This record gives sequence, C-alpha cells and structure tokens, in this order.
Amino acid sequence: MKVAVLESVKKISMEEREIPKPEEDEVLVKVKSVGVCGSDIHYYNEGRIGSFVVEKPLVLGHEASGEVVEAGSKVKSLKIGDRVALEPGVPCRKCVYCKTGRYNLCPDVVFMATPPVDGAFAEYIAHPEDFAFKLPDNVSYDEGALIEPLSVGIYASERARVRPGDTVLIFGAGPVGLVTLQSVKAYGAENAIVVDINDFRLSKAKELGADCVINTKVEKVEDCLNEGVDIVFDASGNSSVISQTTRFVKRGGKVIFIGLASEDYIGININEVSSKELDLLGIFRYANVYKKAIDLVAGGKIDLKSLVTHHFPLDKTQEALEFADKNKDKCIKVVVNP
Amino acid sequence: MKVAVLESVKKISMEEREIPKPEEDEVLVKVKSVGVCGSDIHYYNEGRIGSFVVEKPLVLGHEASGEVVEAGSKVKSLKIGDRVALEPGVPCRKCVYCKTGRYNLCPDVVFMATPPVDGAFAEYIAHPEDFAFKLPDNVSYDEGALIEPLSVGIYASERARVRPGDTVLIFGAGPVGLVTLQSVKAYGAENAIVVDINDFRLSKAKELGADCVINTKVEKVEDCLNEGVDIVFDASGNSSVISQTTRFVKRGGKVIFIGLASEDYIGININEVSSKELDLLGIFRYANVYKKAIDLVAGGKIDLKSLVTHHFPLDKTQEALEFADKNKDKCIKVVVNP
Amino acid sequence: MKVAVLESVKKISMEEREIPKPEEDEVLVKVKSVGVCGSDIHYYNEGRIGSFVVEKPLVLGHEASGEVVEAGSKVKSLKIGDRVALEPGVPCRKCVYCKTGRYNLCPDVVFMATPPVDGAFAEYIAHPEDFAFKLPDNVSYDEGALIEPLSVGIYASERARVRPGDTVLIFGAGPVGLVTLQSVKAYGAENAIVVDINDFRLSKAKELGADCVINTKVEKVEDCLNEGVDIVFDASGNSSVISQTTRFVKRGGKVIFIGLASEDYIGININEVSSKELDLLGIFRYANVYKKAIDLVAGGKIDLKSLVTHHFPLDKTQEALEFADKNKDKCIKVVVNP
Amino acid sequence: MKVAVLESVKKISMEEREIPKPEEDEVLVKVKSVGVCGSDIHYYNEGRIGSFVVEKPLVLGHEASGEVVEAGSKVKSLKIGDRVALEPGVPCRKCVYCKTGRYNLCPDVVFMATPPVDGAFAEYIAHPEDFAFKLPDNVSYDEGALIEPLSVGIYASERARVRPGDTVLIFGAGPVGLVTLQSVKAYGAENAIVVDINDFRLSKAKELGADCVINTKVEKVEDCLNEGVDIVFDASGNSSVISQTTRFVKRGGKVIFIGLASEDYIGININEVSSKELDLLGIFRYANVYKKAIDLVAGGKIDLKSLVTHHFPLDKTQEALEFADKNKDKCIKVVVNP
Repeated sequence: MKVAVLESVKKISMEEREIPKPEEDEVLVKVKSVGVCGSDIHYYNEGRIGSFVVEKPLVLGHEASGEVVEAGSKVKSLKIGDRVALEPGVPCRKCVYCKTGRYNLCPDVVFMATPPVDGAFAEYIAHPEDFAFKLPDNVSYDEGALIEPLSVGIYASERARVRPGDTVLIFGAGPVGLVTLQSVKAYGAENAIVVDINDFRLSKAKELGADCVINTKVEKVEDCLNEGVDIVFDASGNSSVISQTTRFVKRGGKVIFIGLASEDYIGININEVSSKELDLLGIFRYANVYKKAIDLVAGGKIDLKSLVTHHFPLDKTQEALEFADKNKDKCIKVVVNP
Repeated sequence: MKVAVLESVKKISMEEREIPKPEEDEVLVKVKSVGVCGSDIHYYNEGRIGSFVVEKPLVLGHEASGEVVEAGSKVKSLKIGDRVALEPGVPCRKCVYCKTGRYNLCPDVVFMATPPVDGAFAEYIAHPEDFAFKLPDNVSYDEGALIEPLSVGIYASERARVRPGDTVLIFGAGPVGLVTLQSVKAYGAENAIVVDINDFRLSKAKELGADCVINTKVEKVEDCLNEGVDIVFDASGNSSVISQTTRFVKRGGKVIFIGLASEDYIGININEVSSKELDLLGIFRYANVYKKAIDLVAGGKIDLKSLVTHHFPLDKTQEALEFADKNKDKCIKVVVNP
Repeated sequence: MKVAVLESVKKISMEEREIPKPEEDEVLVKVKSVGVCGSDIHYYNEGRIGSFVVEKPLVLGHEASGEVVEAGSKVKSLKIGDRVALEPGVPCRKCVYCKTGRYNLCPDVVFMATPPVDGAFAEYIAHPEDFAFKLPDNVSYDEGALIEPLSVGIYASERARVRPGDTVLIFGAGPVGLVTLQSVKAYGAENAIVVDINDFRLSKAKELGADCVINTKVEKVEDCLNEGVDIVFDASGNSSVISQTTRFVKRGGKVIFIGLASEDYIGININEVSSKELDLLGIFRYANVYKKAIDLVAGGKIDLKSLVTHHFPLDKTQEALEFADKNKDKCIKVVVNP
Repeated sequence: MKVAVLESVKKISMEEREIPKPEEDEVLVKVKSVGVCGSDIHYYNEGRIGSFVVEKPLVLGHEASGEVVEAGSKVKSLKIGDRVALEPGVPCRKCVYCKTGRYNLCPDVVFMATPPVDGAFAEYIAHPEDFAFKLPDNVSYDEGALIEPLSVGIYASERARVRPGDTVLIFGAGPVGLVTLQSVKAYGAENAIVVDINDFRLSKAKELGADCVINTKVEKVEDCLNEGVDIVFDASGNSSVISQTTRFVKRGGKVIFIGLASEDYIGININEVSSKELDLLGIFRYANVYKKAIDLVAGGKIDLKSLVTHHFPLDKTQEALEFADKNKDKCIKVVVNP
C-alpha cells in the first residue's frame, strides 16, 4: 500500500509498505478521508510538539474514516463494507484512568501520528473494533474524518456542562473553535459569541450559528458584553488571550482551555479566580464522545460539511499540509483522500 | 458599649457607641471571642485590601462568637442565654447566587469588617438569627470564633470533593492551612502533606494530623512525593508557590486556591493544565458549612483549641493585631475576648 | 377588584375584594393570563389534594402573568409597565433548603393556590420583585402564564441531566408531558418518545418534536424500543405505568417521577433498580429555572403557544375549570384572561 | 489441586483439577482465604439466584485473597511472593460501561462463582494482574478476602456521596450492613444508626462505630429519630423494610438499595419520593474501589478482623456454608482457608 511518510522536517515522501494484518479484535480499514490537523502541520514544520519528538520516519494524520475491508476473528459489531470513523487513541484498558472512564488520560495510550505511532495518511490502517464507529448512510467519509476534531468540541461542552440558558464566549474561530461553537449550541447554549481576528473564519462562525462574532482588530470584547458570560472557551492558544479569559466570566463561571497554548507559563489573575470562585478546566483530547458526535452530525444538529474547504489526494499530502498552513484566511479544513 | 475602631492606618482607638437594637429577625449578641485574621492585620497595616478601601473609621474582626442577650420578635430558633458562633457574611437572599446556593458570591453581601461594614471587635453585635449558630456545651467561645476560619477549610474540602483514598498537598501551615489540613482529614483524605518554611507551624501541622510535613528551606517537595497527588491546596498565597502547584498534581487532579495571592497575575503552566486535564478551582469564603463545622468540632474530629495560642482583652485590640503580625514563628491564632 | 373564589367543592363565585398593597420589595401586577392546572381542577372537584385541604374560601390559579402597575419602594429591577411572569412559590429564604439552592423544598414556602394561600384568578396580585420575571416583547402574556408548567419540564431535564445523545421515554402527553418533551429536546435529547392513550395529545407531541409517539391502546412500548432508553420520565401519574418504568431503562439509566401519582404505594422492581444500578429521582415543583424557561421561549426553542387551546374570561373561571376537566380529548391548556 | 465443587443443591464435593495456567497478563494465585457470602449459601441451598442458574458443577467463593506464585509474561506490577486481594469480576474492557468507568454494569463481565464461571474455593486461581491488588504487610489474608464485601460498602458510600455532617440510617447489621457502617464513618458521616432484629449483630455494630443501634423487636425507628436522616441504606433486603425507607429520609435525601431484595416488586411511596424530591439509587456490586478499600483497612480506619468469626479448611467448605447459614445469631463472617 501507499503511505505518506514524514522523513524529516518539511519532507514527506510516498512509500510502499505492506498492508497491516488486523488482530483478532481489529478491523482493516481502507482509508477514505483524513483531515489535516494543526498538530500534523506542527510536526511537519518543527519535527516535534513539546516533549513529543519525531525521531524516526512517521506517518501523520489522525482524523480518519474509511471502509472496513477485513475483520478479525473476534469482531462482532462490524462487517466488511461498513463505513467507519476511527477514534485515533487506543488506551491500555487497565490503568486507573481507563477503569474510571477517563481513558484520554491513560499514560500508555497509543495515539495515531504521535511519535512513534504511525497515523492515517496511508491506504490502509488496522484498528480495534471498539474504536471504529459505524457511520450512518447520511454521514460522508469526509464528515467521518471530522468526527475527530468535533469530538474535542463535544468533550469540552461535556466537561463544561453547557446547557440551555448558558452564555458562552469562544476565543478562536479555527476548526476547533468552530466545532466548539457548534457543540455548545447543540448542548443548548443560549448565546454563543465567537472572537477572532480573521474575518473569513468569523463569517464561518456566523454561518454555523454564532449569535455574535467579534473581530478584536476592530472591537473590544468588553464593549460587546453587558455582563460576564457563564463559560469562556479558549480555542486560540494565544497567551495574551488566555491571560485575559478570567475577566470575561461571571462569578461562579468557568474557563475551559482547549488545546495547546503558545507558551507554557501564562499569567492568570489568581485573585480573580478566587474572588469570583471560578473553575479553570483543562481539556486533553476527549473520551466517550465519538458515538454522540456521529449522532449529532447524522441528526443534522452539527454541520461538518461546511468546514471542509479543500481536498488533496494521498500523494499530495505534503502539499495539503503546506496549503493548510499558509491559507488560514481562506481555508478551514483540508482533507486528504487516499 | 466599648468598640475598638480602626481610625487610620495602624491606629485603633476605643470608642463608646450605643448598643445596637436587633431587628425582628435578629439576635443581640454579647461578644465573647473574636479571632484575629490576616485580613484584619492587612487593613490595619495598609488601610485596604485590593479594591476594598477603608475610607472611614472601621471596626475590624469577623471571627466571632458570643451569648444571645436579646432576640427580635420573630426569632424562633434561638433564645436568651444561647451561645452562638456568628457567620459574618449576610447575603441579599434574592439574587441568582443566593437562590442557587452560592450565597458567598452574592454581590450585595454584607460582610463584617469589610469596608464600610463594621465588624466584631465590640462588646455587642446584632446579627440575623439564621447566621447565628448555636454552640453545643462542649464547644467553647474561642472555638466558636474559630468556626469562621474552619469554614474556609471545610468549604475548600467540599469544593475539592475530598474523600477517602485521596492524597493531598497543602501549601501553607498558617491558620488556614491548618484548618484545611484538619478538614481534609475529616473528609477522609488518606495522606495529607503540609508544606511551609516555618518549623513552629509545621510542628503544629504534625500534631494536628499531617501525615508528612515538608520544610522547603531544607527539602524539595518533589523529593518527598512518589507521584502526583490528587489535590493541591494553596493556602500560602505565595506567587512562586502558586506557579508550581500544577507540577505536583497527578493527571485528572485538582488545584484549589484558597485566599488572596500576593500578586494578581501569576504564571500558570496552562499546557500542563491541559495535558493533565486539571481542575483549578478558586475559593471565595464559604457557604453552607457553619453547622457542619460546629458538628465536627463538637464530635472531636477537629481540634480548634490547639490553634489558639494567645489572648488579648478588647482594649488591647491594637496590641493583638501587632502581636499576631509579628510573631508568626510562635503564634497561630490570637483571640480578642471582649 | 374582581376575584374568582372557590367557595366549596364545585362552586366558584365572583367576589369584590380590595386591591392588595405591595410591600416595599413587591410589585402589584394586573393579572393578564392564568393557566388552568390539573391541581386547580383537583381542588375544585375534591376540595383537597392529599394533605392539603381547602378549609376556607380559596382563590385558585398559580400559572400567572401580568403587567406591573405599582412597585414597592425598594423595587429596582422592575418598573410600571413591565410585563412579567410570576413564579408562584415564595420560600422563606432562611432555611437550609433556601440557602443550599433547593428552595422548592422549603417547608415554609408560600405557594399560590395551595391552601390557605390565595392564587391568581383575580384582577390584581402583589408579588415579590425577585419572583416576578420580565417577559421580552416577543413572549405573550399567555406564554408568560405557561412558563409555570414549562418550569416543571425544564427542572426535570436539569435534574435528569439530559444532554445530546440521550434517548428519552416520556409517559403522558398532557401539558406536563408536552413541556417535558420540549424541554428534553432543548437540552439536546437525540430521541424522545412519547407514550399516551389519547391520539389528540399524541398528535400534539408529534407536532412539538417527538421523534416517535406510541399509543399503548394499539402498540406495546417494548415493540417500539430496540434497547432500554437513558431516561424515563413519568408524567402520567398512573400507577401501572409507574410500576413498569424500570423495564424500559438501560443499565445505569434514570427514572424521573414528575407530579402526583394516582396512589401512594406503587410496586417498583427493586431488584431491577439494583441490578441495573438505576437512579429513581423525584421532582417537586422546580427551582431556579424561570429565567431559563423564558429565554427558551423567547429564543424560539420551545413553543408554548400551541399548548393554549382555549380561553375564558375571569368571570367564567368555573366554566374554564369544568371545560378543562371534561375535554382532554380536544384541549391541552385552558387560559383564563382577567 | 483440590477444588470444592457444588455438584447439586446442598452437595459439595472435593475434586482434583489441574492447576490453571496464567495468561500473559494474569497471575497464578495460591488461595489463602475465601469469605463465605450470602450468595454462595443461596446457590448452595437453591441452585440459583434469580435468573442465574447452576446448570453444571460450579465452584463457589468470590471473596478471595492469596499469594502470587507465578506471573504471566506481561505482568509488571506484581511478582512472585506478593500477597493480593482479588477483585472477582473481570469486565470486557470494551463496552460503553467499561469505557465510562461503570464496568460493574458490563453485560459481559466474568464474575467468580456466578454460573457458569468458577469461583475461589480452590487451591489456585489464575486472575488478571489488574484485578489483583497488592496487600500491605499489615493487612492479613483474611482481611484481604473481606476487601470484597467491604468494597460494596465503600462503593455505596461513594454513590451516596456520604460526607461529614451526614446522618445515616442503615437497615441490616449483617456483613454488608457492618461494612457499610464502617464505610460511612470513614467517609465522615456524623451520625450512623444501625437497625436490625439480631442483638448479636447490633452489638457488633456498636463495637464497630455505630452512633446508635435500634432493635426493631423492641423499639420503633421513628421513636429514635428527631428528624429525617440524610441517607438511608438498605442492607436488609427485606421487602417490608424497603417499603418504609422513604419515611425516614429528610427532604432532598437519598435511599440506597444494596443487594438483593426478598421480592422483586415492592411498594414504594412514589408521592413521598416526589414531594420530598428524593433520590433512590440502586447499587450493583462496585467499581474502582478495591485500592481505596485496602488503604482504609491498612490505615486502621476500617476493622475487618472483627468481622471474621469462624474458620474452616477447604475440605470443609460444605460445613462452612451450612454453619454460616444456620448461625446468624453468633457468626458474622465465615472464612475458608485452603
């Protein structure tokens, strides 16, 4: 099979590899769509993300969907021909995190495209049955791939306990901000405000249900708010944004940090955290939300189609990464279709 | 009646005032014990705490107990002669915070010794019946006064959901650290480690149930831990301590900020908050814990007596504040007995 | 002013009474719409509900909205001319339930139309400011009155923690069942199934968003379910229905009992409760949901207009009660407009 | 190895079987202590419990501890010579219950001594490493066996969220009632009242920390209570007791059903459940509490030694079951020591 391999920084080559053999509890999936994620671009550009270093050739891509073409002997819930979305992190199933329902925190998780584990920019991938989720007929492969980023938004909404009546402020209108927006609306948020500096992305936010958008190049957030919001989500990763999040929350409210910040240590107003009695909650990937995410897309409550702005074939994976990196003003999500 | 009034920075004078008349739902209390709190000392030394500024003469003291000497016409649960601890903050009872059980966040709370509201360094005080809690015979007035700081520890334990099996790290062995220690043990914490730089206070911590104490002048915290703890409480307010709290927590754990920090903006490792999926929780005073705190003291599970190291009469209130401020190496809690 | 008074069983007379004077924290409201509730009919027919006995003439009606025509001296948030919905139960604000956010459980609550407290079938009513909620322009008085039953559905959804992905089974398609249906959909329930024996009511359920309706005169519930649901709501009060609720829930699921049951002791399969580890949760009225309910109606997520099927003037209150009682096959909600 | 096998109702024979070979992630344990549980007696007497029917010879016993004598190739956390308590139910690790932390609800759980899965009345047993918990030196094998019933009490306390200040009423002073008693005290319950009709068991309850005991042959529960309690635990399984549980709880309180009831359908006062807004919670076995239970015993907070009243060797397993069944007035827990 053909595989796109990151050989070294900024160099992806096509390679022939053997098609993997599924274990008895695995399915072999012919990959159909793989979304390009910021982390793929980061590995491509820098060869590392924090302490995760690419030390030998690595296959990127962890937002994947495809068709089941073979099933291990113990597989029961899936059959050949099924269309599936793949949850990319497979935990150990035995540690205290796995047993208590927080398997995203499993220290031994095997996560696609995180060194040294290969990802999905390939023609085939073998994956455990219980981390492959059947897609209904009305959910396309591209949407199936985007269940992965959507899961981040759903999980953030779960952890924040978004519910009707809540007012929500989302910093960042990139793919994660946009799925967070759609998630909080699906959870019933009454008023969702999205903040960015990119008009193209803000217009997408508006299309996808934002009650209000703020371009901080031209407006101040505080001028648009009458009072503090219930929940702030940071999907910007920007340290100066993160440093201000507590200002915009009301007493007793929450601030949710999604994804990597541009710096480790960021100044947080701890006296405001105390005097307003805030909850500041970190988010690491997601757990137990894939099925729910698929249902929300199938039920028409969340629109992933609009997020896919560009497509590339597998042998143009490098171009796909380059394009996604350099065109934030006109692209949201680039998808590679092997 | 005699009242100790903060006239200006570092100047407390005794004044004669009229004994207040209790409203129909209030009791008049002859004050017996008032604990000196760090905030009293702060107002005494600086004339302000953050945005709270002493603009006219103010009576300090908000950790109070006493005897009911008069009861308003609608008072039912208390009678003359009852010994009571006073919960010092009386909320509006009507706002969304009051109605949802978080009355400590009420923006209109009237809180003793917070400008411009007078406190308890006085012979008498009138207080709403439902914020005056009957003390059992085996709880002294001094202990009654210290129900106030204990409430902070209990509330922090509630908000952190401490329970059997938890390992806990407490920074700061001052009065708040020591009541937090005793609270987490009452909530079942398996292993409570207290960190400070003051040996006198650490020895108190040891006496009061700390499973381990660490003097960071001679040891590093990390050398004493095998793995991250479930919950870190900061009761030090020290910015460099706060900045490190996330390092010592395990994945999925919590950091609780109790009380004022020495600076507003403190560097927090947000990427660690995300990758460990931490909860960082602020604490503002307390709500709904006074009765529970009294029960724990009456039941012998918490020892407040050992915290009271020094006594002063009402007309020596200034000396009490000065003494408490300057003798942290030999005093825990100074009590004024009007 | 004119008032409709229940003199004795099945006898309502019009009386002239003095217009009440609002206290300093109350508003005087010219009543515009009052919904007829099953409990009004019950008092009208029987003179009692359980231990609540009508011992002297009583004004019924507790689902009310109107216009502020006078405001007490301390009222700040409302002014003359404001259109308001009235939350009918005013708690003591001082007991442990009031202070912990569960004021619906306050033993001293004063609740409209619950003996001996008069209700809203009157031209004017005085009510505390903080239990009178401003209606936006796009919410009519009739809808304002129906915020009361809607609050039951919202509160049940809160207590059940309904969220996206949940499958829900609702027994009973009367007014409470229908607001519960709309509430669970607003909370994101994926699949809401409504069960009744009345086709008119089931067709309303379908109109209002039920994903599936079951008339148990012609179908069995189990024939329509592939597997147990996440949450069962009983809004039927029927003892044989209640007795079966646990069968239809999946392991780890919840059963919510809304409203009065036709009998006190009802056979529940306790071994099923244990072996499936179910939560069975009672619901008593509601707390802290009025504003949220109004927002959901104003935002178009919940349709109360379709529930109002008939109108009567104040001097036809007796006819309104009789009509509502006898026409369940063609009416959902009868509203009296003083 | 020798194994005690239930051949048919009331007939246990000793058999020779081959020592099992541990899988790569299993340890082979030389069994040291096995507690006799009511369910063992039930299978022995009746050949079934509800829908679980003994259809072929079955080894009973699921409260087990022993010494590791062999370790599979992938075992890391245990080594030969380690002393361990065995958590008897091993779930599938893949279903939604396993993934969300409620693995006790896994429909494919393999649970010792539940037909057709053999239990621990044997010289050796092979068991997954992550369900074998290392015992500290100060916890004996007999105590290690009783970690199993203790887990029920701990889990019930977790699910009920017992905490300081709570008043608790426990029906039943058998082994489960007594571990529940000790658990709620470890979780900080202020006042734990135990109810039974057996004076021997009530005296044990008193010894083990009950604040009050009630023998309902001579006293009425209501005569001993000033007001409703926060939480009622039923560990009696008696239908007339269960039927009354709601009477003794205060508004907003909880009733927890532990273990099997004598009948399926039991009359519950649903109107009381609603009007008091109660939570009725079922308990099925336990999840994620073994380590915590061991820590509580090792830390001296829970006394399991006092529960072990009688010992039998493996070849007297039948006598052990008979004895436990017929001597409830003088025995709490019978332990078989292979």
